[in-house]
Amino acid sequence: MSDWYEIDKPASAIELDDRGLQYGDGLFETIAIRRGEPRLWDLHYERLVRGCRRLGLMTPAVKVLRARLDAALANSDCDPMFSIAKIILTAGVTQRGYGRSMPADPRVFVGVFQASPVSRSSYVTGVATMLCSTRLAIGPATAGLKTLNRLEQVLARSECLPTGAFEGLTLDAEGRLVCGTMSNVFIVKDSRIRTPSLERCGVDGTMRRHLLALLDATELGCEIGSLSEDDLADADEVFLTNSQMGAIPVNRCGDLTWRVGPVTRQVLGLLADHGVLECRG
Amino acid sequence: MSDWYEIDKPASAIELDDRGLQYGDGLFETIAIRRGEPRLWDLHYERLVRGCRRLGLMTPAVKVLRARLDAALANSDCDPMFSIAKIILTAGVTQRGYGRSMPADPRVFVGVFQASPVSRSSYVTGVATMLCSTRLAIGPATAGLKTLNRLEQVLARSECLPTGAFEGLTLDAEGRLVCGTMSNVFIVKDSRIRTPSLERCGVDGTMRRHLLALLDATELGCEIGSLSEDDLADADEVFLTNSQMGAIPVNRCGDLTWRVGPVTRQVLGLLADHGVLECRG
Repeated sequence: MSDWYEIDKPASAIELDDRGLQYGDGLFETIAIRRGEPRLWDLHYERLVRGCRRLGLMTPAVKVLRARLDAALANSDCDPMFSIAKIILTAGVTQRGYGRSMPADPRVFVGVFQASPVSRSSYVTGVATMLCSTRLAIGPATAGLKTLNRLEQVLARSECLPTGAFEGLTLDAEGRLVCGTMSNVFIVKDSRIRTPSLERCGVDGTMRRHLLALLDATELGCEIGSLSEDDLADADEVFLTNSQMGAIPVNRCGDLTWRVGPVTRQVLGLLADHGVLECRG
Repeated sequence: MSDWYEIDKPASAIELDDRGLQYGDGLFETIAIRRGEPRLWDLHYERLVRGCRRLGLMTPAVKVLRARLDAALANSDCDPMFSIAKIILTAGVTQRGYGRSMPADPRVFVGVFQASPVSRSSYVTGVATMLCSTRLAIGPATAGLKTLNRLEQVLARSECLPTGAFEGLTLDAEGRLVCGTMSNVFIVKDSRIRTPSLERCGVDGTMRRHLLALLDATELGCEIGSLSEDDLADADEVFLTNSQMGAIPVNRCGDLTWRVGPVTRQVLGLLADHGVLECRG
Protein backbone atom coordinates (compact mmCIF):
# COMPACT_ATOMS: atom_id res chain seq x y z
CA MET A 1 0.00 0.00 0.00
CA SER A 2 2.93 2.32 0.64
CA ASP A 3 6.49 2.23 -0.66
CA TRP A 4 9.10 4.18 1.28
CA TYR A 5 12.70 4.79 0.28
CA GLU A 6 15.70 6.36 2.00
CA ILE A 7 18.57 7.26 -0.35
CA ASP A 8 17.05 5.06 -3.08
CA LYS A 9 16.85 1.98 -0.83
CA PRO A 10 13.54 0.56 0.41
CA ALA A 11 12.84 1.64 4.00
CA SER A 12 10.01 0.85 6.33
CA ALA A 13 10.95 2.21 9.73
CA ILE A 14 12.74 5.02 11.52
CA GLU A 15 14.66 4.91 14.81
CA LEU A 16 12.63 5.69 17.91
CA ASP A 17 15.40 8.16 18.80
CA ASP A 18 14.88 10.14 15.58
CA ARG A 19 13.87 13.74 16.26
CA GLY A 20 11.12 13.44 13.65
CA LEU A 21 9.23 11.17 16.03
CA GLN A 22 10.46 12.63 19.31
CA TYR A 23 9.54 16.26 18.54
CA GLY A 24 8.06 16.45 15.05
CA ASP A 25 11.41 18.04 14.17
CA GLY A 26 11.06 17.96 10.39
CA LEU A 27 9.06 18.84 7.30
CA PHE A 28 7.08 17.12 4.60
CA GLU A 29 5.65 17.67 1.14
CA THR A 30 2.79 15.80 -0.50
CA ILE A 31 3.15 15.99 -4.25
CA ALA A 32 0.70 15.03 -6.98
CA ILE A 33 2.30 12.68 -9.52
CA ARG A 34 0.65 13.15 -12.88
CA ARG A 35 1.81 11.52 -16.13
CA GLY A 36 5.01 10.41 -14.41
CA GLU A 37 5.94 13.92 -13.27
CA PRO A 38 5.74 15.67 -9.88
CA ARG A 39 3.27 18.51 -10.45
CA LEU A 40 4.28 21.97 -9.16
CA TRP A 41 7.70 20.55 -8.28
CA ASP A 42 9.33 24.00 -8.13
CA LEU A 43 6.76 25.26 -5.63
CA HIS A 44 7.10 22.17 -3.43
CA TYR A 45 10.87 22.49 -3.45
CA GLU A 46 10.67 26.20 -2.71
CA ARG A 47 8.47 25.59 0.36
CA LEU A 48 10.86 22.88 1.54
CA VAL A 49 13.74 25.36 1.26
CA ARG A 50 11.82 27.94 3.29
CA GLY A 51 11.06 25.27 5.88
CA CYS A 52 14.68 24.13 6.09
CA ARG A 53 15.83 27.71 6.67
CA ARG A 54 13.28 28.24 9.42
CA LEU A 55 13.96 24.92 11.16
CA GLY A 56 17.74 25.01 10.84
CA LEU A 57 18.09 22.10 8.42
CA MET A 58 20.51 21.92 5.54
CA THR A 59 18.57 22.14 2.30
CA PRO A 60 18.96 19.08 0.10
CA ALA A 61 20.21 20.08 -3.36
CA VAL A 62 17.34 20.17 -5.82
CA LYS A 63 19.04 17.70 -8.17
CA VAL A 64 19.70 15.20 -5.39
CA LEU A 65 16.17 15.43 -4.05
CA ARG A 66 14.63 15.15 -7.50
CA ALA A 67 16.82 12.13 -8.29
CA ARG A 68 15.61 10.42 -5.13
CA LEU A 69 12.01 11.18 -5.99
CA ASP A 70 12.46 9.90 -9.54
CA ALA A 71 14.12 6.72 -8.26
CA ALA A 72 11.25 6.11 -5.84
CA LEU A 73 8.72 6.64 -8.61
CA ALA A 74 10.62 4.29 -10.92
CA ASN A 75 10.73 1.58 -8.22
CA SER A 76 7.15 1.96 -7.07
CA ASP A 77 4.25 -0.19 -8.25
CA CYS A 78 1.93 2.80 -8.08
CA ASP A 79 0.42 4.23 -11.26
CA PRO A 80 2.88 6.85 -12.57
CA MET A 81 -0.03 8.53 -14.35
CA PHE A 82 -1.87 9.33 -11.13
CA SER A 83 -0.39 8.85 -7.66
CA ILE A 84 0.97 10.71 -4.64
CA ALA A 85 4.56 11.14 -3.48
CA LYS A 86 5.40 12.19 0.04
CA ILE A 87 8.81 13.57 0.99
CA ILE A 88 9.69 13.61 4.69
CA LEU A 89 12.74 15.40 6.08
CA THR A 90 13.70 14.82 9.71
CA ALA A 91 16.49 16.30 11.81
CA GLY A 92 17.71 12.74 12.45
CA VAL A 93 19.15 11.19 15.59
CA THR A 94 21.16 13.64 17.71
CA GLN A 95 21.79 14.21 21.39
CA ARG A 96 18.82 13.93 23.76
CA GLY A 97 16.81 17.02 24.64
CA TYR A 98 15.07 19.65 22.53
CA GLY A 99 18.19 21.52 21.44
CA ARG A 100 20.39 20.57 18.52
CA SER A 101 23.11 22.11 16.42
CA MET A 102 21.90 24.14 13.44
CA PRO A 103 21.85 23.61 10.58
CA ALA A 104 21.44 19.83 10.89
CA ASP A 105 21.87 17.46 7.97
CA PRO A 106 18.36 16.06 7.43
CA ARG A 107 17.36 12.51 6.65
CA VAL A 108 15.22 12.28 3.54
CA PHE A 109 12.48 9.69 3.02
CA VAL A 110 10.34 9.41 -0.11
CA GLY A 111 7.06 7.47 -0.14
CA VAL A 112 4.79 6.71 -3.09
CA PHE A 113 1.09 5.97 -2.64
CA GLN A 114 -2.00 5.16 -4.64
CA ALA A 115 -4.25 8.18 -5.17
CA SER A 116 -8.03 8.32 -5.47
CA PRO A 117 -9.29 11.04 -7.78
CA VAL A 118 -12.07 13.31 -6.51
CA SER A 119 -15.37 12.52 -8.25
CA ARG A 120 -16.07 14.44 -11.45
CA SER A 121 -19.36 15.70 -10.01
CA SER A 122 -17.58 17.40 -7.10
CA TYR A 123 -15.89 19.79 -9.55
CA VAL A 124 -19.28 20.61 -11.09
CA THR A 125 -21.67 20.79 -8.15
CA GLY A 126 -19.18 21.44 -5.35
CA VAL A 127 -18.51 19.78 -2.01
CA ALA A 128 -19.98 20.16 1.48
CA THR A 129 -17.79 21.50 4.27
CA MET A 130 -18.21 22.08 7.98
CA LEU A 131 -16.75 24.53 10.46
CA CYS A 132 -14.35 22.74 12.82
CA SER A 133 -14.39 23.51 16.52
CA THR A 134 -10.60 22.94 16.69
CA ARG A 135 -8.95 26.36 16.46
CA LEU A 136 -5.49 26.98 15.00
CA ALA A 137 -2.90 28.47 17.36
CA ILE A 138 -1.61 31.92 16.43
CA GLY A 139 2.15 32.13 16.25
CA PRO A 140 4.59 33.02 13.53
CA ALA A 141 7.35 30.53 14.50
CA THR A 142 6.31 27.94 11.92
CA ALA A 143 3.28 29.60 10.26
CA GLY A 144 2.84 28.71 6.59
CA LEU A 145 5.22 25.76 6.72
CA LYS A 146 4.42 22.08 6.33
CA THR A 147 6.15 20.78 9.43
CA LEU A 148 5.69 17.40 11.09
CA ASN A 149 3.74 19.18 13.87
CA ARG A 150 0.23 18.60 12.55
CA LEU A 151 -1.86 17.78 15.59
CA GLU A 152 -4.29 20.63 14.95
CA GLN A 153 -5.01 19.23 11.50
CA VAL A 154 -5.44 15.74 12.96
CA LEU A 155 -7.96 17.03 15.51
CA ALA A 156 -9.83 19.20 13.00
CA ARG A 157 -9.91 16.55 10.26
CA SER A 158 -11.07 13.90 12.72
CA GLU A 159 -14.08 16.11 13.47
CA CYS A 160 -15.07 15.89 9.80
CA LEU A 161 -14.85 12.12 9.30
CA PRO A 162 -18.02 11.12 11.23
CA THR A 163 -20.04 13.91 9.56
CA GLY A 164 -19.21 12.92 6.00
CA ALA A 165 -18.15 16.50 5.21
CA PHE A 166 -15.63 16.62 2.37
CA GLU A 167 -13.53 19.18 4.24
CA GLY A 168 -13.49 21.16 7.47
CA LEU A 169 -12.81 24.89 7.57
CA THR A 170 -10.75 26.13 10.50
CA LEU A 171 -10.58 29.43 12.35
CA ASP A 172 -7.64 30.71 14.34
CA ALA A 173 -7.75 31.17 18.11
CA GLU A 174 -9.20 34.67 17.59
CA GLY A 175 -11.92 33.54 15.17
CA ARG A 176 -10.43 34.52 11.81
CA LEU A 177 -10.94 32.17 8.87
CA VAL A 178 -7.61 30.50 7.99
CA CYS A 179 -7.88 27.41 5.77
CA GLY A 180 -9.26 23.91 5.47
CA THR A 181 -7.71 20.95 7.26
CA MET A 182 -6.04 19.87 3.99
CA SER A 183 -6.73 22.82 1.69
CA ASN A 184 -6.64 26.57 1.35
CA VAL A 185 -9.86 28.54 1.12
CA PHE A 186 -10.88 31.37 -1.22
CA ILE A 187 -14.07 33.44 -1.16
CA VAL A 188 -15.64 35.50 -3.94
CA LYS A 189 -17.72 38.63 -3.22
CA ASP A 190 -18.92 40.96 -5.99
CA SER A 191 -16.50 39.17 -8.37
CA ARG A 192 -13.51 39.92 -6.13
CA ILE A 193 -11.46 36.95 -4.97
CA ARG A 194 -10.02 36.95 -1.44
CA THR A 195 -8.01 34.44 0.58
CA PRO A 196 -6.75 34.53 4.19
CA SER A 197 -3.26 35.69 5.02
CA LEU A 198 -1.15 32.84 6.42
CA GLU A 199 1.37 34.91 8.34
CA ARG A 200 0.14 33.80 11.73
CA CYS A 201 -1.01 30.21 11.13
CA GLY A 202 -2.09 27.78 8.43
CA VAL A 203 -0.22 26.05 5.63
CA ASP A 204 0.86 27.98 2.54
CA GLY A 205 -0.33 25.47 -0.07
CA THR A 206 1.47 25.01 -3.37
CA MET A 207 -1.79 25.06 -5.36
CA ARG A 208 -2.68 28.32 -3.61
CA ARG A 209 0.68 29.78 -4.71
CA HIS A 210 0.21 28.47 -8.24
CA LEU A 211 -3.27 29.98 -8.44
CA LEU A 212 -2.21 33.32 -6.93
CA ALA A 213 0.49 33.67 -9.59
CA LEU A 214 -2.02 32.84 -12.32
CA LEU A 215 -4.63 35.27 -10.93
CA ASP A 216 -2.04 38.05 -10.71
CA ALA A 217 -1.50 37.68 -14.45
CA THR A 218 -5.23 38.14 -15.19
CA GLU A 219 -7.71 40.92 -14.48
CA LEU A 220 -9.15 38.75 -11.68
CA GLY A 221 -6.36 39.17 -9.12
CA CYS A 222 -6.73 38.08 -5.50
CA GLU A 223 -6.66 40.02 -2.27
CA ILE A 224 -4.76 38.40 0.62
CA GLY A 225 -5.89 39.59 4.03
CA SER A 226 -7.85 38.97 7.19
CA LEU A 227 -11.18 37.18 6.67
CA SER A 228 -13.89 36.71 9.28
CA GLU A 229 -16.71 34.21 9.69
CA ASP A 230 -19.00 37.04 8.50
CA ASP A 231 -17.00 37.35 5.28
CA LEU A 232 -17.57 33.65 4.73
CA ALA A 233 -21.30 33.95 5.41
CA ASP A 234 -21.52 36.96 3.09
CA ALA A 235 -19.60 35.34 0.19
CA ASP A 236 -21.15 34.78 -3.23
CA GLU A 237 -18.89 31.81 -3.98
CA VAL A 238 -16.37 29.72 -2.03
CA PHE A 239 -13.72 27.34 -3.30
CA LEU A 240 -10.77 25.32 -2.00
CA THR A 241 -7.33 24.59 -3.40
CA ASN A 242 -5.12 21.57 -2.70
CA SER A 243 -2.08 20.11 -4.43
CA GLN A 244 -3.88 16.86 -5.31
CA MET A 245 -7.25 18.28 -6.40
CA GLY A 246 -6.46 21.67 -7.87
CA ALA A 247 -9.49 23.86 -7.08
CA ILE A 248 -12.86 22.54 -6.03
CA PRO A 249 -16.08 24.52 -5.44
CA VAL A 250 -17.74 24.56 -2.00
CA ASN A 251 -21.52 24.41 -1.95
CA ARG A 252 -22.06 24.56 1.80
CA CYS A 253 -20.55 24.96 5.25
CA GLY A 254 -22.97 23.92 7.97
CA ASP A 255 -26.11 26.01 7.34
CA LEU A 256 -24.47 28.34 4.83
CA THR A 257 -24.94 27.49 1.15
CA TRP A 258 -23.35 28.83 -2.03
CA ARG A 259 -23.86 28.31 -5.73
CA VAL A 260 -20.98 27.24 -7.97
CA GLY A 261 -20.59 30.63 -9.61
CA PRO A 262 -18.91 32.13 -12.66
CA VAL A 263 -15.71 33.22 -10.90
CA THR A 264 -15.11 29.76 -9.48
CA ARG A 265 -15.70 28.25 -12.92
CA GLN A 266 -13.20 30.74 -14.36
CA VAL A 267 -10.64 29.72 -11.70
CA LEU A 268 -11.10 26.03 -12.50
CA GLY A 269 -10.66 26.77 -16.20
CA LEU A 270 -7.53 28.79 -15.52
CA LEU A 271 -5.96 25.94 -13.52
CA ALA A 272 -7.01 23.36 -16.13
CA ASP A 273 -5.22 25.48 -18.75
CA HIS A 274 -2.10 25.53 -16.56
CA GLY A 275 -1.32 21.94 -15.72
CA VAL A 276 -4.17 20.95 -13.40
CA LEU A 277 -6.21 18.79 -15.73
CA GLU A 278 -8.61 17.53 -13.05
CA CYS A 279 -10.23 20.98 -13.05
CA ARG A 280 -11.32 20.64 -16.72
CA GLY A 281 -15.10 21.23 -16.87
CA MET B 1 22.89 4.71 25.25
CA SER B 2 19.14 4.29 25.04
CA ASP B 3 16.97 1.23 25.66
CA TRP B 4 13.49 1.21 24.14
CA TYR B 5 10.75 -1.34 24.74
CA GLU B 6 7.32 -1.94 23.21
CA ILE B 7 5.09 -4.27 25.24
CA ASP B 8 8.10 -5.44 27.25
CA LYS B 9 10.12 -6.38 24.14
CA PRO B 10 13.19 -4.44 23.02
CA ALA B 11 12.34 -2.07 20.17
CA SER B 12 14.50 0.29 18.19
CA ALA B 13 12.35 1.62 15.37
CA ILE B 14 8.84 2.67 14.39
CA GLU B 15 7.10 2.36 11.02
CA LEU B 16 7.45 5.36 8.74
CA ASP B 17 3.66 5.18 8.34
CA ASP B 18 3.08 5.65 12.08
CA ARG B 19 1.09 8.79 12.84
CA GLY B 20 3.57 9.66 15.59
CA LEU B 21 6.14 10.46 12.90
CA GLN B 22 3.74 11.61 10.17
CA TYR B 23 1.90 14.20 12.27
CA GLY B 24 3.30 14.15 15.79
CA ASP B 25 0.03 12.43 16.66
CA GLY B 26 0.90 11.33 20.17
CA LEU B 27 2.09 12.23 23.64
CA PHE B 28 5.10 11.68 25.85
CA GLU B 29 6.21 11.84 29.46
CA THR B 30 9.75 12.19 30.77
CA ILE B 31 9.94 10.73 34.25
CA ALA B 32 12.72 10.97 36.83
CA ILE B 33 13.72 7.52 38.11
CA ARG B 34 15.01 7.83 41.65
CA ARG B 35 15.90 4.91 43.92
CA GLY B 36 14.24 2.53 41.44
CA GLU B 37 10.92 4.37 41.46
CA PRO B 38 9.29 6.75 38.95
CA ARG B 39 9.03 10.04 40.84
CA LEU B 40 5.66 11.87 40.70
CA TRP B 41 4.22 8.87 38.85
CA ASP B 42 0.61 9.84 39.66
CA LEU B 43 1.06 13.31 38.18
CA HIS B 44 2.72 11.95 35.03
CA TYR B 45 -0.08 9.42 34.58
CA GLU B 46 -2.71 12.09 35.19
CA ARG B 47 -1.26 14.36 32.50
CA LEU B 48 -1.12 11.41 30.10
CA VAL B 49 -4.82 10.75 30.77
CA ARG B 50 -5.68 14.41 30.07
CA GLY B 51 -3.65 14.23 26.86
CA CYS B 52 -5.33 11.00 25.73
CA ARG B 53 -8.76 12.56 26.24
CA ARG B 54 -7.83 15.65 24.28
CA LEU B 55 -6.19 13.74 21.42
CA GLY B 56 -8.78 10.98 21.17
CA LEU B 57 -6.55 8.15 22.35
CA MET B 58 -7.64 5.30 24.58
CA THR B 59 -5.98 5.69 27.96
CA PRO B 60 -3.69 2.80 28.89
CA ALA B 61 -4.74 1.33 32.23
CA VAL B 62 -2.48 2.58 34.98
CA LYS B 63 -1.51 -0.95 36.05
CA VAL B 64 -0.60 -1.97 32.50
CA LEU B 65 1.44 1.17 31.90
CA ARG B 66 3.23 0.89 35.22
CA ALA B 67 4.02 -2.77 34.58
CA ARG B 68 5.60 -1.85 31.24
CA LEU B 69 7.63 0.89 32.84
CA ASP B 70 8.77 -1.43 35.62
CA ALA B 71 9.74 -4.13 33.09
CA ALA B 72 11.74 -1.60 31.07
CA LEU B 73 13.53 -0.42 34.22
CA ALA B 74 14.27 -4.01 35.24
CA ASN B 75 15.72 -4.79 31.78
CA SER B 76 17.72 -1.59 31.42
CA ASP B 77 21.39 -1.25 32.21
CA CYS B 78 20.81 2.29 33.45
CA ASP B 79 21.32 3.15 37.09
CA PRO B 80 17.97 2.53 38.83
CA MET B 81 19.00 5.02 41.51
CA PHE B 82 19.20 7.92 39.08
CA SER B 83 18.00 7.77 35.47
CA ILE B 84 15.26 8.96 33.11
CA ALA B 85 12.33 7.05 31.65
CA LYS B 86 10.46 8.31 28.63
CA ILE B 87 7.02 7.02 27.71
CA ILE B 88 5.82 7.70 24.17
CA LEU B 89 2.24 7.08 23.03
CA THR B 90 1.45 7.29 19.32
CA ALA B 91 -1.84 6.92 17.45
CA GLY B 92 -0.23 4.11 15.44
CA VAL B 93 -0.57 3.22 11.77
CA THR B 94 -4.00 4.01 10.33
CA GLN B 95 -5.42 5.18 7.02
CA ARG B 96 -3.54 7.95 5.20
CA GLY B 97 -4.56 11.56 5.78
CA TYR B 98 -4.92 13.69 8.89
CA GLY B 99 -8.22 12.22 10.07
CA ARG B 100 -8.58 9.04 12.11
CA SER B 101 -11.22 7.32 14.17
CA MET B 102 -11.38 8.38 17.81
CA PRO B 103 -10.53 7.09 20.28
CA ALA B 104 -7.60 5.22 18.76
CA ASP B 105 -5.73 2.46 20.58
CA PRO B 106 -2.26 3.93 21.15
CA ARG B 107 1.08 2.22 20.79
CA VAL B 108 3.18 2.53 23.92
CA PHE B 109 6.97 2.75 23.94
CA VAL B 110 9.12 3.03 27.05
CA GLY B 111 12.73 4.20 26.91
CA VAL B 112 15.29 4.33 29.72
CA PHE B 113 18.27 6.69 29.62
CA GLN B 114 21.27 7.73 31.67
CA ALA B 115 20.72 10.99 33.54
CA SER B 116 23.24 13.69 34.46
CA PRO B 117 22.49 15.45 37.72
CA VAL B 118 22.60 19.23 37.77
CA SER B 119 25.66 20.50 39.63
CA ARG B 120 25.24 21.09 43.35
CA SER B 121 26.37 24.69 42.96
CA SER B 122 23.49 25.46 40.57
CA TYR B 123 21.02 24.85 43.41
CA VAL B 124 22.98 27.22 45.63
CA THR B 125 24.02 30.07 43.34
CA GLY B 126 21.42 29.68 40.60
CA VAL B 127 21.64 29.32 36.83
CA ALA B 128 21.85 31.80 33.96
CA THR B 129 18.95 31.99 31.50
CA MET B 130 18.27 33.94 28.32
CA LEU B 131 15.12 35.25 26.66
CA CYS B 132 14.41 33.25 23.48
CA SER B 133 13.31 35.02 20.34
CA THR B 134 11.12 32.02 19.40
CA ARG B 135 7.59 32.84 20.53
CA LEU B 136 5.00 30.24 21.56
CA ALA B 137 1.81 30.10 19.50
CA ILE B 138 -1.39 30.95 21.34
CA GLY B 139 -4.08 28.33 21.01
CA PRO B 140 -5.94 26.18 23.45
CA ALA B 141 -6.20 23.03 21.27
CA THR B 142 -3.25 21.31 22.94
CA ALA B 143 -2.11 23.91 25.50
CA GLY B 144 -0.61 22.43 28.66
CA LEU B 145 -0.14 18.97 27.16
CA LYS B 146 3.10 17.18 26.38
CA THR B 147 2.37 16.22 22.78
CA LEU B 148 4.85 15.07 20.15
CA ASN B 149 4.47 18.52 18.49
CA ARG B 150 7.47 20.21 20.06
CA LEU B 151 9.03 22.27 17.28
CA GLU B 152 8.73 25.51 19.23
CA GLN B 153 10.76 23.99 22.06
CA VAL B 154 13.32 22.68 19.56
CA LEU B 155 13.74 26.14 18.04
CA ALA B 156 13.83 27.93 21.40
CA ARG B 157 16.20 25.44 23.03
CA SER B 158 18.53 25.51 20.02
CA GLU B 159 18.88 29.27 20.55
CA CYS B 160 20.28 28.56 24.02
CA LEU B 161 22.90 25.96 23.13
CA PRO B 162 25.47 28.28 21.50
CA THR B 163 25.11 30.84 24.32
CA GLY B 164 25.79 28.41 27.15
CA ALA B 165 22.65 29.55 28.96
CA PHE B 166 21.27 26.84 31.24
CA GLU B 167 17.72 27.54 30.07
CA GLY B 168 15.77 29.83 27.74
CA LEU B 169 12.64 31.64 28.85
CA THR B 170 9.88 31.93 26.24
CA LEU B 171 7.13 34.46 25.65
CA ASP B 172 3.89 33.80 23.80
CA ALA B 173 3.06 35.47 20.47
CA GLU B 174 1.63 38.46 22.41
CA GLY B 175 4.66 38.87 24.66
CA ARG B 176 3.45 37.25 27.87
CA LEU B 177 5.95 35.17 29.87
CA VAL B 178 4.99 31.47 29.60
CA CYS B 179 7.74 29.03 30.63
CA GLY B 180 11.24 27.78 29.92
CA THR B 181 12.00 25.50 26.99
CA MET B 182 12.15 22.52 29.37
CA SER B 183 10.88 24.01 32.64
CA ASN B 184 8.17 26.11 34.24
CA VAL B 185 8.99 29.52 35.64
CA PHE B 186 8.03 31.17 38.93
CA ILE B 187 8.72 34.73 40.08
CA VAL B 188 8.73 36.14 43.60
CA LYS B 189 7.80 39.77 44.33
CA ASP B 190 7.37 41.09 47.88
CA SER B 191 7.39 37.47 49.11
CA ARG B 192 4.44 36.56 46.84
CA ILE B 193 5.01 33.67 44.40
CA ARG B 194 3.48 33.86 40.92
CA THR B 195 3.60 31.59 37.87
CA PRO B 196 2.13 32.00 34.38
CA SER B 197 -1.22 30.48 33.47
CA LEU B 198 -0.82 27.72 30.86
CA GLU B 199 -4.33 27.84 29.41
CA ARG B 200 -3.20 29.20 26.07
CA CYS B 201 0.23 27.64 25.58
CA GLY B 202 3.10 26.01 27.42
CA VAL B 203 3.51 22.66 29.11
CA ASP B 204 1.89 21.99 32.47
CA GLY B 205 4.88 20.42 34.20
CA THR B 206 4.51 17.73 36.83
CA MET B 207 7.01 19.40 39.17
CA ARG B 208 4.99 22.63 38.81
CA ARG B 209 1.83 20.72 39.82
CA HIS B 210 3.64 19.05 42.72
CA LEU B 211 4.96 22.38 43.97
CA LEU B 212 1.62 24.18 43.56
CA ALA B 213 -0.07 21.53 45.72
CA LEU B 214 2.66 21.89 48.36
CA LEU B 215 2.48 25.71 48.30
CA ASP B 216 -1.30 25.62 48.66
CA ALA B 217 -0.83 23.72 51.91
CA THR B 218 1.49 26.41 53.33
CA GLU B 219 1.08 30.11 54.00
CA LEU B 220 3.18 30.80 50.90
CA GLY B 221 0.58 29.95 48.24
CA CYS B 222 1.06 30.80 44.57
CA GLU B 223 -0.88 33.04 42.24
CA ILE B 224 -1.46 31.68 38.71
CA GLY B 225 -2.05 34.39 36.15
CA SER B 226 -0.78 36.51 33.29
CA LEU B 227 2.86 37.63 33.66
CA SER B 228 4.64 40.20 31.51
CA GLU B 229 8.29 40.84 30.73
CA ASP B 230 8.01 43.78 33.14
CA ASP B 231 6.91 41.43 35.92
CA LEU B 232 10.05 39.40 35.25
CA ALA B 233 12.26 42.50 35.29
CA ASP B 234 10.62 43.66 38.50
CA ALA B 235 10.91 40.30 40.33
CA ASP B 236 12.90 39.89 43.54
CA GLU B 237 13.60 36.20 42.86
CA VAL B 238 13.07 33.81 39.96
CA PHE B 239 13.19 30.02 39.90
CA LEU B 240 12.41 27.14 37.54
CA THR B 241 10.80 23.75 38.05
CA ASN B 242 11.34 20.58 36.02
CA SER B 243 10.58 16.92 36.65
CA GLN B 244 14.27 15.94 36.61
CA MET B 245 15.73 18.84 38.63
CA GLY B 246 12.99 19.82 41.04
CA ALA B 247 13.35 23.58 41.55
CA ILE B 248 16.44 25.56 40.65
CA PRO B 249 17.14 29.27 41.28
CA VAL B 250 17.70 31.66 38.36
CA ASN B 251 20.40 34.31 38.85
CA ARG B 252 20.07 36.08 35.49
CA CYS B 253 18.21 36.42 32.21
CA GLY B 254 20.19 38.46 29.71
CA ASP B 255 20.92 41.77 31.49
CA LEU B 256 18.52 41.12 34.37
CA THR B 257 20.02 39.69 37.55
CA TRP B 258 18.48 38.27 40.71
CA ARG B 259 19.76 37.04 44.03
CA VAL B 260 18.92 33.56 45.29
CA GLY B 261 16.45 34.75 47.92
CA PRO B 262 14.73 33.41 51.01
CA VAL B 263 11.48 32.41 49.27
CA THR B 264 13.34 30.35 46.66
CA ARG B 265 15.35 28.68 49.42
CA GLN B 266 12.09 27.91 51.23
CA VAL B 267 10.67 26.37 48.02
CA LEU B 268 13.74 24.18 47.56
CA GLY B 269 13.48 23.04 51.16
CA LEU B 270 9.79 22.25 50.75
CA LEU B 271 10.47 20.10 47.68
CA ALA B 272 13.42 18.39 49.36
CA ASP B 273 11.09 17.48 52.24
CA HIS B 274 8.60 16.04 49.76
CA GLY B 275 10.51 13.58 47.61
CA VAL B 276 12.80 15.84 45.57
CA LEU B 277 16.09 15.19 47.30
CA GLU B 278 18.21 17.06 44.72
CA CYS B 279 16.86 20.32 46.19
CA ARG B 280 18.41 19.63 49.60
CA GLY B 281 20.61 22.61 50.53
